[in-house]
Amino acid sequence: MTQDHKQQAEAEWWSTAIIEMEPGVIRYRGYPIEELIGRASFAQMIWLLLRGELPSRDQAALLDIALMAAVDHGPQAPSIAIARMAATCGVGLNNAMASAVNVLGDVHGGAGEQALEFYFGIAEAINGGAEIEAAAASALDAFFADGGRFLPGFGHRFHPVDPRAPRLLAMVDDYAKKGAVSGHYATIARAVESALARCKGKTVPMNIDGATAVIYAELGFPPPLARGLFCLSRSVGILAHAWEEMQSGLRNKGPLPRERLWNYLGPPQRPVIGLEEG
Amino acid sequence: MTQDHKQQAEAEWWSTAIIEMEPGVIRYRGYPIEELIGRASFAQMIWLLLRGELPSRDQAALLDIALMAAVDHGPQAPSIAIARMAATCGVGLNNAMASAVNVLGDVHGGAGEQALEFYFGIAEAINGGAEIEAAAASALDAFFADGGRFLPGFGHRFHPVDPRAPRLLAMVDDYAKKGAVSGHYATIARAVESALARCKGKTVPMNIDGATAVIYAELGFPPPLARGLFCLSRSVGILAHAWEEMQSGLRNKGPLPRERLWNYLGPPQRPVIGLEEG
Amino acid sequence: MTQDHKQQAEAEWWSTAIIEMEPGVIRYRGYPIEELIGRASFAQMIWLLLRGELPSRDQAALLDIALMAAVDHGPQAPSIAIARMAATCGVGLNNAMASAVNVLGDVHGGAGEQALEFYFGIAEAINGGAEIEAAAASALDAFFADGGRFLPGFGHRFHPVDPRAPRLLAMVDDYAKKGAVSGHYATIARAVESALARCKGKTVPMNIDGATAVIYAELGFPPPLARGLFCLSRSVGILAHAWEEMQSGLRNKGPLPRERLWNYLGPPQRPVIGLEEG
Amino acid sequence: MTQDHKQQAEAEWWSTAIIEMEPGVIRYRGYPIEELIGRASFAQMIWLLLRGELPSRDQAALLDIALMAAVDHGPQAPSIAIARMAATCGVGLNNAMASAVNVLGDVHGGAGEQALEFYFGIAEAINGGAEIEAAAASALDAFFADGGRFLPGFGHRFHPVDPRAPRLLAMVDDYAKKGAVSGHYATIARAVESALARCKGKTVPMNIDGATAVIYAELGFPPPLARGLFCLSRSVGILAHAWEEMQSGLRNKGPLPRERLWNYLGPPQRPVIGLEEG
Repeated sequence: MTQDHKQQAEAEWWSTAIIEMEPGVIRYRGYPIEELIGRASFAQMIWLLLRGELPSRDQAALLDIALMAAVDHGPQAPSIAIARMAATCGVGLNNAMASAVNVLGDVHGGAGEQALEFYFGIAEAINGGAEIEAAAASALDAFFADGGRFLPGFGHRFHPVDPRAPRLLAMVDDYAKKGAVSGHYATIARAVESALARCKGKTVPMNIDGATAVIYAELGFPPPLARGLFCLSRSVGILAHAWEEMQSGLRNKGPLPRERLWNYLGPPQRPVIGLEEG
Repeated sequence: MTQDHKQQAEAEWWSTAIIEMEPGVIRYRGYPIEELIGRASFAQMIWLLLRGELPSRDQAALLDIALMAAVDHGPQAPSIAIARMAATCGVGLNNAMASAVNVLGDVHGGAGEQALEFYFGIAEAINGGAEIEAAAASALDAFFADGGRFLPGFGHRFHPVDPRAPRLLAMVDDYAKKGAVSGHYATIARAVESALARCKGKTVPMNIDGATAVIYAELGFPPPLARGLFCLSRSVGILAHAWEEMQSGLRNKGPLPRERLWNYLGPPQRPVIGLEEG
Repeated sequence: MTQDHKQQAEAEWWSTAIIEMEPGVIRYRGYPIEELIGRASFAQMIWLLLRGELPSRDQAALLDIALMAAVDHGPQAPSIAIARMAATCGVGLNNAMASAVNVLGDVHGGAGEQALEFYFGIAEAINGGAEIEAAAASALDAFFADGGRFLPGFGHRFHPVDPRAPRLLAMVDDYAKKGAVSGHYATIARAVESALARCKGKTVPMNIDGATAVIYAELGFPPPLARGLFCLSRSVGILAHAWEEMQSGLRNKGPLPRERLWNYLGPPQRPVIGLEEG
Repeated sequence: MTQDHKQQAEAEWWSTAIIEMEPGVIRYRGYPIEELIGRASFAQMIWLLLRGELPSRDQAALLDIALMAAVDHGPQAPSIAIARMAATCGVGLNNAMASAVNVLGDVHGGAGEQALEFYFGIAEAINGGAEIEAAAASALDAFFADGGRFLPGFGHRFHPVDPRAPRLLAMVDDYAKKGAVSGHYATIARAVESALARCKGKTVPMNIDGATAVIYAELGFPPPLARGLFCLSRSVGILAHAWEEMQSGLRNKGPLPRERLWNYLGPPQRPVIGLEEG
């Protein structure tokens, strides 16, 4: 590698199509920031940075709805509890947010991503000629045959019906009527809900993750961004709880008040034998 | 403590005024989620969770502007570089976001918070009877006398003029004309800019942090939330860069291409002496 | 659920076999802390907490070797670069460590875990009657047939021969000679190395992850703990680099000096059209 | 800046005195890794990376003791609870460790650092000619006059006497008798304990942080490394608890079992008014 090629390689090591800068100039995806400010909303900027183009007003409105609907589910969620405990440990709000967002993993924050993949699989089968009910039923069969237990996006361990899901789906219907989105994934998700009810012998209604996944699918987001966008959304609740707790003045808040200890399950007291001192 | 009091104490250990839940019911600050969906925007939800009440449409619009303006400043910023490198290490997007948001500390993410405190100090002096120019000059003197070097919210190591700041201030002026905000903090920030220019003998223009701090001050946010809101905003750029890098297929991306090593400054090679084996 | 059962369920929600406490009393796995201090080494405590029993002196010594050998591989590794950049952002050493440890994911920190699983698979085949060379060759075939590209624990993108691996394997041989471990996994790993060389037509020597995985296998650690122990080990280098950088006084250190920008690959400058103001 | 200077600046941007590499070569502080393996213990490597030179055997043994004594204090500590909850969210052990280590901030992990600073201040006064009792009393007075409430390193909210502290101090005495350390900081810490008892009218005994700070002071570590080393030590308990919980199979473990909700303190149910749909 010549010196020139080496410099070239280094110059290209840090590359991006998101942002361009010169002294006094900032452009996102080609748009000067000073033209965006006052014209593009926060939701439009999120879309622009993630997708490369500005969304229509309706697309941005639907994205905004998915983001506003998932902000918080209370301190029983590990992410929120972590944010609150972190806020009492002498770290900054940014650190409390980080410890909390960090746990939005496959189990806690991944259901939207997994639901999106599930819907996309059904859509592909439909594209290949399958009928929607058959495609949904067959995807479900495959899920359970593969050892799946909880279908991502359906059912809730606390809410018999998640109050967010029907309202979100109604919004999708409204935007589909306006022609802003196709409504195809709302139909698919409802077919999944029906097939699941037949399969389980009882209704297992769509939850927030299943419903926001419909929105993200309608808007054309790839599955991993369903998780990314959920992280943005839940960061709001995480911040709010961290801030509320920070004002409590508690120090080193644990999961239980300090009088309460955990349940010890290990061996009883025993002496250390066979290890010499020092 | 009786058994009853103990139970009471435990029940109260996890308390919040943000969210209330029952099976099938979610309310934020008293508002049922199904009534908020489709009516309250993402920015309004952010405000509601952080402040306890729904903002006016103009207040939410101004908050939205502060959030959309700070989403990204490119991979030279440690937070963005960290997000990109993390995305090549086999962790989830939530983890990449966490490692990055985590470094938005006093130096990288704290300028808005510090600028807000600075403005609030001047506002207090004005409330106490001082004239605005005198209050700004005196706050600056105190800052430098106290060993301060870089006034938070002013000057930029890369941009001679940060293109976001004048545009953001113009937006505040617009909203002040409409009566949505007072405009008081825009006046204070401009007085600080003038006093700083006199003090330094050259213009040290307001930057994004100084300008968003004006917005947060106009909207009545306490200083720590300026950092919290910046974290929300920058999380967008962090997510976008992590996602772009994740698609590159690189593995374990370091700061320099793999042919390049760092500069070693320590002692030359030397033998290990005086330590026996095993 | 009666009130009594509810209390019981809550009492058991936080359970552990690791530590027991009463006022003035701390016991790990049954051993009083005051008896352990001065008798059990750091490596022995690590073992005790993870495994439930105190290791022999030789077992602890071999664990100590695996831990000391993987502490650092320089700032080209994303984890170390992240620690250094974080340290310039105004966060604590604990935060810098967290952002860095967080990226020791499947790609950056998972090779030891994956190598351990690979060795265990071969050991199982041998237990089932296979000969060692055949078992190694067949496991390799399966790995490549399954789309695997880089066999975890073998080969290095920088070192033709990783200087840590042969020395670590020699230590395992020494401890096997003493009877402290069986040496079975050292034999398996060497069989893998031979099979891989035949398969690739050139030597692809064992690296640090392959060698520490031999140690962890000899000591009976389950695969996920190979990653956990690597995190402990690398935390040392992470801390050392964060601390060194913290003393540099740099602020917001990016991957490149501030004069250098990244390579922009997106669309050229374009006007924002179709979005109305405010 | 000429092209040459620019290249030079970039080459020096990533610099370190900790590690040197060439293909096939790794040296820490000048020592080849293959000479260290089998000779230097984990504690000696920690010292070498942080301090630049290999410690004596006794120095390393004392560091080892400080590290082994602080590994865990149970799931009532936020860091441990966070590790356990994170482990149920579908993230890796490295991520669970990161979320937990991240909260070892000023309040949760900073007491050792603060105690070390406090001891060093007294040592400086003694160097300046003050008598030890007077220096301790005067430092205490200054601490309380400055608004300090809990003297870092003394007192414990759970243990009347922290069983780790007297045993650790006894170890320091042993090593001081051998001449491995001076014992000066053990004397200072005991003088602080006496002055505090006089001041408060009751014994407020030294805790683990006060005792490990004595060890770190005797060994010459700067205060921030007391926090860094505590993070290394507590990472062991964090890993052990995350691992134990990961095996429980629980999903999204919150601070309370799922039947239990938090205590809601906000406004009662109210309708959303004044916000139009969509």
